[in-house]
Amino acid sequence: MTGSQDSLRLDLGERSYDIAVGTGVLEIAGPAIRAATGTGKCWIVTDETVAATYLAPLEKSLQAAGLNAQTIVLPPGEGSKSFATVEKVVNTVLDGSPERSSTLIALGGGVIGDLTGFAASIILRGINFVQIPTTLLAQVDSSVGGKTGINTRHGKNLAGAFYQPKLVIADTGVLDTLPRRELLAGYAEVIKYGLIRDPGFFGWLEQNGTAVLDGDGDARAYAVRASCAAKAAVVAEDERENGVRALLNFGHTFGHALEAETGFGAELLHGEAVAIGMIMALELSAMLDLCPAADVERVRRHYTATGLPMTVPTAQNRRWDPATLIRHMGHDKKVQDGKVTFILARGIGDAFVARDVNLDDVERLLDQAVAA
Amino acid sequence: MTGSQDSLRLDLGERSYDIAVGTGVLEIAGPAIRAATGTGKCWIVTDETVAATYLAPLEKSLQAAGLNAQTIVLPPGEGSKSFATVEKVVNTVLDGSPERSSTLIALGGGVIGDLTGFAASIILRGINFVQIPTTLLAQVDSSVGGKTGINTRHGKNLAGAFYQPKLVIADTGVLDTLPRRELLAGYAEVIKYGLIRDPGFFGWLEQNGTAVLDGDGDARAYAVRASCAAKAAVVAEDERENGVRALLNFGHTFGHALEAETGFGAELLHGEAVAIGMIMALELSAMLDLCPAADVERVRRHYTATGLPMTVPTAQNRRWDPATLIRHMGHDKKVQDGKVTFILARGIGDAFVARDVNLDDVERLLDQAVAA
Repeated sequence: MTGSQDSLRLDLGERSYDIAVGTGVLEIAGPAIRAATGTGKCWIVTDETVAATYLAPLEKSLQAAGLNAQTIVLPPGEGSKSFATVEKVVNTVLDGSPERSSTLIALGGGVIGDLTGFAASIILRGINFVQIPTTLLAQVDSSVGGKTGINTRHGKNLAGAFYQPKLVIADTGVLDTLPRRELLAGYAEVIKYGLIRDPGFFGWLEQNGTAVLDGDGDARAYAVRASCAAKAAVVAEDERENGVRALLNFGHTFGHALEAETGFGAELLHGEAVAIGMIMALELSAMLDLCPAADVERVRRHYTATGLPMTVPTAQNRRWDPATLIRHMGHDKKVQDGKVTFILARGIGDAFVARDVNLDDVERLLDQAVAA
Repeated sequence: MTGSQDSLRLDLGERSYDIAVGTGVLEIAGPAIRAATGTGKCWIVTDETVAATYLAPLEKSLQAAGLNAQTIVLPPGEGSKSFATVEKVVNTVLDGSPERSSTLIALGGGVIGDLTGFAASIILRGINFVQIPTTLLAQVDSSVGGKTGINTRHGKNLAGAFYQPKLVIADTGVLDTLPRRELLAGYAEVIKYGLIRDPGFFGWLEQNGTAVLDGDGDARAYAVRASCAAKAAVVAEDERENGVRALLNFGHTFGHALEAETGFGAELLHGEAVAIGMIMALELSAMLDLCPAADVERVRRHYTATGLPMTVPTAQNRRWDPATLIRHMGHDKKVQDGKVTFILARGIGDAFVARDVNLDDVERLLDQAVAA
């Protein structure tokens, strides 16, 4: 199989790049990477889980293209997004005498992509970077747009860089091996593009969402391509999140608080937190008479149809406290002039940035949500 | 004294910024910083030596402008340019819940500026950054142009970011307290601007260099202003060193090797290494019949007049080995396609990038230089 491919372009002047989406594009990554970055030295950064299945085909394709890559394999999990691991990756690459024309290739999910991009941004003040996302979440969200970073004891992604890749290769075939729970978590970010700016895409997902989740290759490729195109358009318009890019945080202010409370771990995946957070944002919008209740109900029906979580997890006797959740929001990057920014919606496909939300209303909403 | 000030502008589109040069500008830093960055939270990063003399006037000026800064005081010396110190600074700032409108102010020499700029570039993926250089070297070179970074076990500045400040405040009055040796080391970078592109400025320095070094305020302000203007023009033309900016590395390939050999310490200061390296670059240019010997002699005369070092230090029975020095050059950032880049000169004020220098010629030059 040579793969079927369809490239999108993220337009950022001299920092523009292609996003190759399709089945089998991993097997033809070598020539694409060579075309985008040249013939300099390469390093693949990946984790043990991903390496087991996808490292060999990538290495083979790189070799066939005349690129001889070294590989850095990290333990899987959010713990790798640390200063210590960045330092380790940077030093391992520097051991090999990189030049400014050298390339770091991230093969993995969001953790690997965020970490590797940050390392690439600082080695010699910036070497080439290629994203090969292997989760749905990374394919439709984190691999596109240049946000890289690590976590600190204060929270997630609080240190990092805006650093664009030279190429993104999203092989939708790799999603076949992704656990259902992770697939569903990534699907939350797919829905998001419909909810914030594209009611037509949301309608398409209502018809085809279960096919996307159940393994229909064409539906998957369409959903990933549409999501990448939506993200690319937003990033091209506002790379550094001074305006419209903030809409991509729909559901994320609430979601961030939920993740902070659960420790950013397996109890609640990022996509699950975003899924619940988007419902909260819609409910808050309805409570403030900004969004028709019927739209919220329609979104809830799609959650039910696909199995997306709508309510906070109550396993391990976890108790949710609205005041604590609001405190978590205050430590988010999205705080401006001491105020928490929310993304609200006037309806499906019509999100907007709200900087003047009354935190009493947020607490009332959370009271209902965690009591439910 | 309200200070006499003369602002230059570094033109980089939306990343343009002012460079305020003059005596007493530290005392009026507060309003200038407020104008350039707004009223967000501020952190001053400095070292113990600089803090003793210049922290109080800066804090006073910030307070008078309504800015209440916290201060992070680091130990002096190159050792602070490390991953560990960046992590410490980032975490200390994050303890104070910064926002994207917050500001890091670097008060110190090149070490403080490079480290603080790198930290500012990664906190929340980039917060405001202000440079207040307190050494001649930092005022005329490292504070302008956005190169930030740290050292690794592989060498200097191998990890970092291109990150421009919002404002540079170069108070030439602070040079009065600078040790003569450091002043002279910084003066090497001043001469460099004359040697690479501006024979007229070199002529001015031949007339006024000793006045600059001996404490003539007007001569100092003129020399710093002219140097900053020269650097600003080069950076505006080529921010990321794809072309003309490489000329600023005149003397640095040799100098880097000398510093690597002496351990980047007090035995040989950066500016001293650059001074010796510029002589080596001129001698190599003359050896290759590119540069008139008379020009090299003229430069040597100015070195003699000002006391700049021309030859490698021989204290502590240090033995210099040309082959080892060339190996150090191979680990520099300036290597491209495996080749070491040199900046050579056709004469005073006429430097150019040479990518095809025969390393046998370099070794021959070094043989003579270290035997001398």
